[in-house]
Amino acid sequence: MFEDERTELLEKIEDYVDRKRYADLRDLLLPLEAADIAQLFAELEEKALPLAFRLLPKEQAAEVFVELDSDQQEMLIQGFSNTELKEVLDELYLDDTVDIVEEMPAGVVKRILRHSDPEMRKSINEILKYPEDSTGSIMTTEFVDLKATMTVEDAFKRIRRTGLDKETINICYVTDERRHLTGLLSIRTLLLADEDDVIGDIMETNLISVQTLDDQETTARSLSKYNFLALPVVDTENRLVGIVTVDDAMDVLQEEVTEDIELMAAILPSDKPYLKTGVLETWKARTPWLLILMLSATFTGIILTHFESSLSACAILTAFIPMLSGTGGNSGTQASTAVIRALSLGEVRFSDLLRVLWKEFRVSLCCGACLAAANFVKMMVVDRWLMNNPEVTAPVALVVCCTLVGTVLCAKLVGCSLPLLAEKAGFDPAVMASPFISTIVDSISLLIYFQFATALLGI
Amino acid sequence: MFEDERTELLEKIEDYVDRKRYADLRDLLLPLEAADIAQLFAELEEKALPLAFRLLPKEQAAEVFVELDSDQQEMLIQGFSNTELKEVLDELYLDDTVDIVEEMPAGVVKRILRHSDPEMRKSINEILKYPEDSTGSIMTTEFVDLKATMTVEDAFKRIRRTGLDKETINICYVTDERRHLTGLLSIRTLLLADEDDVIGDIMETNLISVQTLDDQETTARSLSKYNFLALPVVDTENRLVGIVTVDDAMDVLQEEVTEDIELMAAILPSDKPYLKTGVLETWKARTPWLLILMLSATFTGIILTHFESSLSACAILTAFIPMLSGTGGNSGTQASTAVIRALSLGEVRFSDLLRVLWKEFRVSLCCGACLAAANFVKMMVVDRWLMNNPEVTAPVALVVCCTLVGTVLCAKLVGCSLPLLAEKAGFDPAVMASPFISTIVDSISLLIYFQFATALLGI
Repeated sequence: MFEDERTELLEKIEDYVDRKRYADLRDLLLPLEAADIAQLFAELEEKALPLAFRLLPKEQAAEVFVELDSDQQEMLIQGFSNTELKEVLDELYLDDTVDIVEEMPAGVVKRILRHSDPEMRKSINEILKYPEDSTGSIMTTEFVDLKATMTVEDAFKRIRRTGLDKETINICYVTDERRHLTGLLSIRTLLLADEDDVIGDIMETNLISVQTLDDQETTARSLSKYNFLALPVVDTENRLVGIVTVDDAMDVLQEEVTEDIELMAAILPSDKPYLKTGVLETWKARTPWLLILMLSATFTGIILTHFESSLSACAILTAFIPMLSGTGGNSGTQASTAVIRALSLGEVRFSDLLRVLWKEFRVSLCCGACLAAANFVKMMVVDRWLMNNPEVTAPVALVVCCTLVGTVLCAKLVGCSLPLLAEKAGFDPAVMASPFISTIVDSISLLIYFQFATALLGI
Repeated sequence: MFEDERTELLEKIEDYVDRKRYADLRDLLLPLEAADIAQLFAELEEKALPLAFRLLPKEQAAEVFVELDSDQQEMLIQGFSNTELKEVLDELYLDDTVDIVEEMPAGVVKRILRHSDPEMRKSINEILKYPEDSTGSIMTTEFVDLKATMTVEDAFKRIRRTGLDKETINICYVTDERRHLTGLLSIRTLLLADEDDVIGDIMETNLISVQTLDDQETTARSLSKYNFLALPVVDTENRLVGIVTVDDAMDVLQEEVTEDIELMAAILPSDKPYLKTGVLETWKARTPWLLILMLSATFTGIILTHFESSLSACAILTAFIPMLSGTGGNSGTQASTAVIRALSLGEVRFSDLLRVLWKEFRVSLCCGACLAAANFVKMMVVDRWLMNNPEVTAPVALVVCCTLVGTVLCAKLVGCSLPLLAEKAGFDPAVMASPFISTIVDSISLLIYFQFATALLGI
């Protein structure tokens, strides 16, 4: 619904800014969601942004600020007075502040830290210490913690006193005097319990927790697998240090999928939206793999040069090379993509290698037979009869069809096993996708082609 | 953590089953999460499953049941007595029951409906009426609804009375007497309010809602964009009919991404895990696109046959065809993948077509120049000098390099525009990915190649 109105809203905003109708502009923005306002602001002229931003009430301003992209955040911070900066920072949740700080240049970071209150500053510095893709880097330390000896009434008092500043109150965590995680309760359990029930008696003690140094994607997948709203994060001594909430997990999963898809298309991952990435940046992300794959095609060139005499003896063979290499590439891509996705969803592991190979072996025989039959008919009917090309004889068609079966078989076996081997060796299996597999399969299919040609055509 | 223990746990379970140590088995399963138990059960022998399942306490049994795959669910239902079936159904949330019913054969569905209580049966039937990919099909009708005239105290009484059966109590919805959605409150707002505050005064009235017939992916993306825990679903007359919760949204996003990735690899989407899909099913999903793409390679064959005389005049040209078509395919894939992902994340729209083309135009010139330079050096140094091939002359290298630039340019422009055009025409842009683009770019690059060869080598 919002997409359709966007252009209209943008025109209105610019109009209000031009005609200095600030009260109207404020009334226009107030009922919108923060994420929508941020989308509108992203398309606003640079000079209108600080003005429009300052019209928002404090709380909404902070929510919008979080959703802006880092260029715009930086620009706003540069323009903020110290009081304004402090006001925005006070309204932010800790994990959002950390996200912002991570994207800012050093000067801006210093200014942000100087204007955060001391406790916030300490927490920011702590989270910043965790490696980039770790669970620690996406957690927040703002959670509700209770003691096992409290009654439900005590717990509610504590939630009412501290809950406003917590990222979520839907799940509360129970720790002992040494901050070890001993249990958790949903707010539902609390609400349905009696006021004088003791927390220790009604809390859930079968806990799933993650560690600060766990990979953030693994953590996000656990959260999604168990349908939790938050996961507790503990340090190496099982002390509760933070929580990861479902909204952050969704963002992580989305980023990781984008990264996988980019890798699979031979693009170096970037975390900027498509239209925000500059030409040079895009070029830098795309050229390395293109270069590597282009240079590795030297092998196909060598094979073709080697068989130059066979090709000149039977020139029509050249006409089917693109079809063979295309089909090989596509077959391999299908297998590698299926396995890469299954790996990232946790459906297969390296130990399944033999089962995967056996499955792909049978699939590729079916596919190969089917393609070969179709191709034989097509070559005899279209190429020989309709196009009236006498060079396309039954033996030639037979060579092409046998090559098809062999190529599909090799392509699928290579395609399904390389991602599993990459995973085992500690690489990202997504790199073993389409372009990489195609380059390998290209050479294999040519070798098969010339073997069959030599054997069946006697050239 | 769980992955490492899995094999060990499985052995223990099978051992306990064999030796009939059921109490031990129960103690082993009790502390595990439902999703983990389901994973273990998935690998259990068929005859051990009903036995192990019956050991679980009612509530946990229902949670595990939801996580099992449909084959196992069906097997269990077939073996259930009527009382057992009723017990499991009573513990299930509505939306989970609907998910299960959607996968079962008609006979089992009838049995499930017969043993659901009348209200549940009515709701199931209602949700089953919505189209497969609609928001209505993933919503649940079990939510907390309040009236604007209630006090906070009334609201808590209502939540305590009905909350146990609701999918979530974290967000409560306010409706008027005609069931129109008028507001919502988080449980946090309720907890932080005074007992005699009136709901109508403290509720949020700027609402984002979705409609029953909206696409489920759009709904899931909204939920993720706004960081909500649930979204209200209304009918065409703005009456509240259900809610979609964040865990279901995450599942939808995951399925849709898998579907996109499969389409991009020329596989017809399926919703079964890789190893659970039979050979014939996999074959059926993969052959259609392979066939179409193979047959469409007829064009490249025709082009090559047409230029057969040029090729025999300068045979070395053949050696670079795979490299050119590979690089063209990869360049096109990069552009199409970037645009397809940006489309699905809502970063670009059809109206951005010119901006996208202009960006890709500049990127492709940079990439093309870079590849051409590298290729020229490689051909002169490796092919001519190291491999001592006198056929590789400077003019030949020039033809190949010019073709490279032209191919990359065409590939990127075709690659970026086809997904946008597909989206505009109402198709899934993911189909316009790697294999499809490669097939088109193959023909284009050959045509460019022979144009340059004719012009520069005079053949």
